[in-house]
Amino acid sequence: MTDLTFVSKQLTKPFTLLALASTIALSGCNATQNSVFYQEKSPSKQAPKVLSDMDKHLAQVTYNSQQSYLSYNIVKSLTVEVGPRIAGSTGDKKAVAWAEAKFAELGFDKIYKQPVRVRNWERGFADARVIAPFAQQLVVTALGGSIATPEGGLTAPVVMFDSLDSLSAAEPSTVDGKIVFLNTRMQRDKAGRFYGKVVPNRVRGAVEAAKKNALAVIIRSVGTDNSRFAHTGVMRYDDAVKKIPAGAISTADADTLEAMFEQPSEVILDIEMQAKDAGWQTSYNVIGEFTGSTRPDEVVLISGHLDSWDEGTGALDDGAGVGIVMAAAKHVKDAVGQPERTIRVVLYAAEEIGLIGAYEYVRANKDELSNIIVAAESDFGAGKIYRLDTRFAQAVRDTPKTLYSALSDMGVELGNNTTNGGPDVSMLPKYGVPVVALKQDGYYYFDYHHTPNDTLDKINKDDIRQNQTIWSLLTTYMAMSDFDPRPAPNVQ
Amino acid sequence: MTDLTFVSKQLTKPFTLLALASTIALSGCNATQNSVFYQEKSPSKQAPKVLSDMDKHLAQVTYNSQQSYLSYNIVKSLTVEVGPRIAGSTGDKKAVAWAEAKFAELGFDKIYKQPVRVRNWERGFADARVIAPFAQQLVVTALGGSIATPEGGLTAPVVMFDSLDSLSAAEPSTVDGKIVFLNTRMQRDKAGRFYGKVVPNRVRGAVEAAKKNALAVIIRSVGTDNSRFAHTGVMRYDDAVKKIPAGAISTADADTLEAMFEQPSEVILDIEMQAKDAGWQTSYNVIGEFTGSTRPDEVVLISGHLDSWDEGTGALDDGAGVGIVMAAAKHVKDAVGQPERTIRVVLYAAEEIGLIGAYEYVRANKDELSNIIVAAESDFGAGKIYRLDTRFAQAVRDTPKTLYSALSDMGVELGNNTTNGGPDVSMLPKYGVPVVALKQDGYYYFDYHHTPNDTLDKINKDDIRQNQTIWSLLTTYMAMSDFDPRPAPNVQ
Repeated sequence: MTDLTFVSKQLTKPFTLLALASTIALSGCNATQNSVFYQEKSPSKQAPKVLSDMDKHLAQVTYNSQQSYLSYNIVKSLTVEVGPRIAGSTGDKKAVAWAEAKFAELGFDKIYKQPVRVRNWERGFADARVIAPFAQQLVVTALGGSIATPEGGLTAPVVMFDSLDSLSAAEPSTVDGKIVFLNTRMQRDKAGRFYGKVVPNRVRGAVEAAKKNALAVIIRSVGTDNSRFAHTGVMRYDDAVKKIPAGAISTADADTLEAMFEQPSEVILDIEMQAKDAGWQTSYNVIGEFTGSTRPDEVVLISGHLDSWDEGTGALDDGAGVGIVMAAAKHVKDAVGQPERTIRVVLYAAEEIGLIGAYEYVRANKDELSNIIVAAESDFGAGKIYRLDTRFAQAVRDTPKTLYSALSDMGVELGNNTTNGGPDVSMLPKYGVPVVALKQDGYYYFDYHHTPNDTLDKINKDDIRQNQTIWSLLTTYMAMSDFDPRPAPNVQ
Repeated sequence: MTDLTFVSKQLTKPFTLLALASTIALSGCNATQNSVFYQEKSPSKQAPKVLSDMDKHLAQVTYNSQQSYLSYNIVKSLTVEVGPRIAGSTGDKKAVAWAEAKFAELGFDKIYKQPVRVRNWERGFADARVIAPFAQQLVVTALGGSIATPEGGLTAPVVMFDSLDSLSAAEPSTVDGKIVFLNTRMQRDKAGRFYGKVVPNRVRGAVEAAKKNALAVIIRSVGTDNSRFAHTGVMRYDDAVKKIPAGAISTADADTLEAMFEQPSEVILDIEMQAKDAGWQTSYNVIGEFTGSTRPDEVVLISGHLDSWDEGTGALDDGAGVGIVMAAAKHVKDAVGQPERTIRVVLYAAEEIGLIGAYEYVRANKDELSNIIVAAESDFGAGKIYRLDTRFAQAVRDTPKTLYSALSDMGVELGNNTTNGGPDVSMLPKYGVPVVALKQDGYYYFDYHHTPNDTLDKINKDDIRQNQTIWSLLTTYMAMSDFDPRPAPNVQ
């Protein structure tokens, strides 16, 4: 790229990447990778702006990305060729092989994997039906990690609570011997802020219910849809508390069950779930790199997670993240050639069952974490990015103005400096590793999250391309500059 | 109602029902049923309009309906207390008992039922999985009336067609021994106009495929959603053609299966369906009437169908119609007292499997069809009504200006005079029975139609109330006027 002369009278301040990219597109110039040449066509009274190398890199990668549906095509490949891939399953093993092959196909120069021991779990058959006051079949699914019901199921009266707090405050005798129904509604939100308020029902419901001698717990799905898809997701037991089966019913079925309580008579439920622990398996973090040309030991780590839940094809969670970061790295390589710093794409194992791959990554790379200039994860679907949050050393937080300006041109505002960067990189800042988060519009994300309905058709091709372009810009900037935001500050 | 003095300076032309109803509401007058009294509070230069009895009836029923969620509550009762009710099933028998009890609860003065012999069919377990080029589980459901696959399922290469016409035009050798995949997309439309174009895949796909010696047929669901719900619905065999199993896969799974064809290798599918004919059963048309006070032999017939498919709770199809017409009749009775003509609410049996109850109604009442002044059915969900189509004797088509004006005030335009009135009354015009259709916004109707996702939460309470009000207006007008649109004209 150093041989380019890239001048245009249009490119006066403010420098607009979108304008530049579209100028390239409209000019009909030979815009194949690594070869863009531009000349003024008419005299101008304004002095032309001579673009910096970084400006050219950012313009080129934007242009390339905007011609490309690579991220979408990667998700399509993963979801069609592999599909569901719960950690440790056959699908997961296929996904690992798929990832290695895909990195190779994309020309990554270093491809390797780290073994991660995971506890596999199988969902099996699940069935729930109201016996009284009115017979109704309910759509139910086991929560990830739940034990099975006794063979043949269990039948008991149901006690309904509007929140986990209400359950915790309840007189134990009102719960003893019953099935607990946690019926908390979740609101839609662009940033998904209500997930954190409702998800304790799923994670801790079984323990809290079992403390009061409940026989099982059924939650209203942690989701914002109104449909008959039940949302699974991980739940936890406490070794000090008896294990009881835990399931989720769809929001539509939760409405039906709730309506049963308008009758004077007892609500009786029959549940059967055949979920089971399937023993230890080996999964892998799969890693692809473009090795840095001049500073190979300085690492820009971008990531997603390879595992998914088992009922959908894991398109939004987290096929999208996988597609976005693989495509971004590839676009950077195509736009700038070998990057100065190493670009490391990490596809983490076993995120869904507790960030298992991410913790293993830290354990296995403890001595080299200080080499990571920045880390980030894409794991919130494929909605458009609207904000950049960072965790940069405060003294240099305002330094990368060129990056911020390029993102601003794409409609991405600068947010706070207290992010954790996403689930699988959230443990890195405490080791001093700077992180960033490119916040996505997640208004509809929890309609599909952890359901059979998390499939490719939920991804808008232009929205995921916007993600790809912005990740490409971020990665280009971080891999081609000497900006160094280490160490990440402590924040509470 | 004849003792009312109902005068208001606000009620000058154009007479607006909504304005009147809201005036009643705001005035704080005693607006209990059958007792509305109005007086001018200040002198006016305009001469007050003296409302006709019909104006008062229409205003009163509008006011009453707009305070009421009765139609919604009836659907809630049906879906929560009965739920799925495929013709001839246990659920269907419960629905018949529910309907009789609900008519009684609402004070209908004549309640009876007509036996309808129906062929019951049970869905049973269904499973479809792609074997090659990539293993994938597909969401599948049997089409209504389909035979089962051989025990253990069947495995065969798949041949894909974009339409039934393409299948019909295909060289038989390309279909012989294969599973046919009919992959036609359906467009959204307010009036559902694309249903008719796509539904032949479902109804005739098995026959057309079997003519070319296919082993089975799988259709892309006849639906406008992108989701993993498969849409069932009735299919037909031809006695002259071998019966083969027929199923539908969800639109998301159809996308996945379609993507498999981008590979060079053969697409192999394994299908198992355990659907079965469950023999003859007796179902019933359930009928409730408010007997006409002065002209009991003149019948205003409003209807919905009581049966549903078996996977959802039949909220939109056709719980909504049931709720709307039961509530409308009740609101008319509350607003006007005993109607002059008989209001007959017919809840037809077995619409879904071929209008069986409706044909039985015609057979059993053949000599009395000429007494029906008008017939109509609500069977397109609970979206807002935007148009009235009619099938009135042309000479009097413009006569009911008061009705048209009242509907116009509610945003309902007058449409054509060639309607068939809805599925279960569509065979009546040929006997001279006039029909009308209150056209509903069905933009989202085919997202849920015939899926497990047809549940109460899909009904907007205010939209179904708008339906209730408009059906109440229509029914009031037809039951309290001497307007007579008989006989229905022939139209092609």
